[in-house]
Amino acid sequence: MSFLERIADCNTYDLARFLPFRVAKQALGWVRRDFMPLLAEFADVFVVDEAGVTLHPRLDSFAARSDAVAPVLRTLASRGVIVGWRDELYPATTSFRADPALQLERAATAYFGLRTFGVHMNGFVRKRDGIHLWVPRRARTKPTYPGQLDNTVAGGQPIGLGLADNLVKECKEEANIPAALARRARPVGVITYCAEVAEGLQPDAQFCFDLELPEDFVPSNTDGEIDEFLLWPIDRVAEVVCNTREFKPNCSLVIMQFLMRQGILPPDHPDYVAIAQGLASTTAIG
Amino acid sequence: MSFLERIADCNTYDLARFLPFRVAKQALGWVRRDFMPLLAEFADVFVVDEAGVTLHPRLDSFAARSDAVAPVLRTLASRGVIVGWRDELYPATTSFRADPALQLERAATAYFGLRTFGVHMNGFVRKRDGIHLWVPRRARTKPTYPGQLDNTVAGGQPIGLGLADNLVKECKEEANIPAALARRARPVGVITYCAEVAEGLQPDAQFCFDLELPEDFVPSNTDGEIDEFLLWPIDRVAEVVCNTREFKPNCSLVIMQFLMRQGILPPDHPDYVAIAQGLASTTAIG
Repeated sequence: MSFLERIADCNTYDLARFLPFRVAKQALGWVRRDFMPLLAEFADVFVVDEAGVTLHPRLDSFAARSDAVAPVLRTLASRGVIVGWRDELYPATTSFRADPALQLERAATAYFGLRTFGVHMNGFVRKRDGIHLWVPRRARTKPTYPGQLDNTVAGGQPIGLGLADNLVKECKEEANIPAALARRARPVGVITYCAEVAEGLQPDAQFCFDLELPEDFVPSNTDGEIDEFLLWPIDRVAEVVCNTREFKPNCSLVIMQFLMRQGILPPDHPDYVAIAQGLASTTAIG
Repeated sequence: MSFLERIADCNTYDLARFLPFRVAKQALGWVRRDFMPLLAEFADVFVVDEAGVTLHPRLDSFAARSDAVAPVLRTLASRGVIVGWRDELYPATTSFRADPALQLERAATAYFGLRTFGVHMNGFVRKRDGIHLWVPRRARTKPTYPGQLDNTVAGGQPIGLGLADNLVKECKEEANIPAALARRARPVGVITYCAEVAEGLQPDAQFCFDLELPEDFVPSNTDGEIDEFLLWPIDRVAEVVCNTREFKPNCSLVIMQFLMRQGILPPDHPDYVAIAQGLASTTAIG
């Protein structure tokens, strides 16, 4: 087992199974071929041909596109095609700050291979014997990755909420970190990956934050999504990330970047350059 | 001007002008087509054909390869083909820790498009009004990038010297930082790029280090390669990196990663994800 294997876990996909999803001539994502016939039925919203899927050109504004796509997605969800409805709106965009082409239900993003964004935070403690990281174990009742280890705080980035505000909200919900403390979190970078999932393709960018926590602060969960918080010496975290699949796959990548930044994963590691490059992997859109 | 433009400055090349350089069937670099006829003359060392350049298969060990290549390079240097002789040996390898296929004169690496490695350090001071970075100006007499701004300490990575030891050596030579202080530098990551230069192709990996310096420490140069050291507020550094070409191109990238790690380049910057990916650019070898 190796760090590069954790990166491969998040970056395994076969683009030959997908065709581009375009809005107003811009390629925004990827649609798996087996999903295309299900969209072809809605010919006033989606144009499906051998080149891929295009949003109908009559839909020429953010509002028109969002309003036209929403009932299609609800219909597909009612038929059990789209699963895991979240009631959370995500932007369809290639860049976090670009004007999104439309907004749509979070659960649908992977069916269209849209890039999603999230905030992930490493909450750590400096003890006399070195850095310790707060590691939550996801509730065994969670529909996704039950019982797996996670980043101290992590959440998807919905439309219309700033990154810092979203992080403060997630800090409260997931770890009961008060807003005044959460606002001390420092943005430190981003990791990107592209995973093929049951629903389709998931190119994701996770904005990373570090928060040094006081030694007497103990996180606790307020939304029932975490079973327990473990305070682990960083060497143990590194060992578990490298040699097991106990962490939720994308959380491993956030921790690996933390290990590099803190000098715990040293530059004379044989895979150092490849790891750094793997944490910034790009997905061709076109 | 933009941060992405600085990344493009270091990543502009046309691979169509190059063919692979192989040793023992492994592609290690790239040779520009106009350099190939000059190597063809040395048929007992280089096999030159339409597929590229291969080291002669009779050369089957590190020593045999290094010993056979050295006189060819010296001949080409005496003819003025290879310029900028350094008398410093670099490994020919795709990965810093892999066993190198051979060693060769540093000045020749770009002619063979070999990946080079370096150590670059941000020496910074935390003042009451924020972070300040020590910025050296290269001597106006230096053959390469005279008068340009540089990283606090930076140097190429020769064969047979550890990264940490190399950094301590460069800290002494370039900034008169005592070894005990230099050893506090923390490895924080790596940036990679690939530049086309007059000599050929230069895929480079720069291991990045941060060193917090005491407010009363003033760096000074001991090898005549630096004209002056400037202590600049980090916002001024960011502005000059973004909007000018005053910094040596690859040093801009090291500073951009520092700005991200310190939260000075914030995640809601429109180009944040693209910058992070650009600082880890890969070069296809094959």
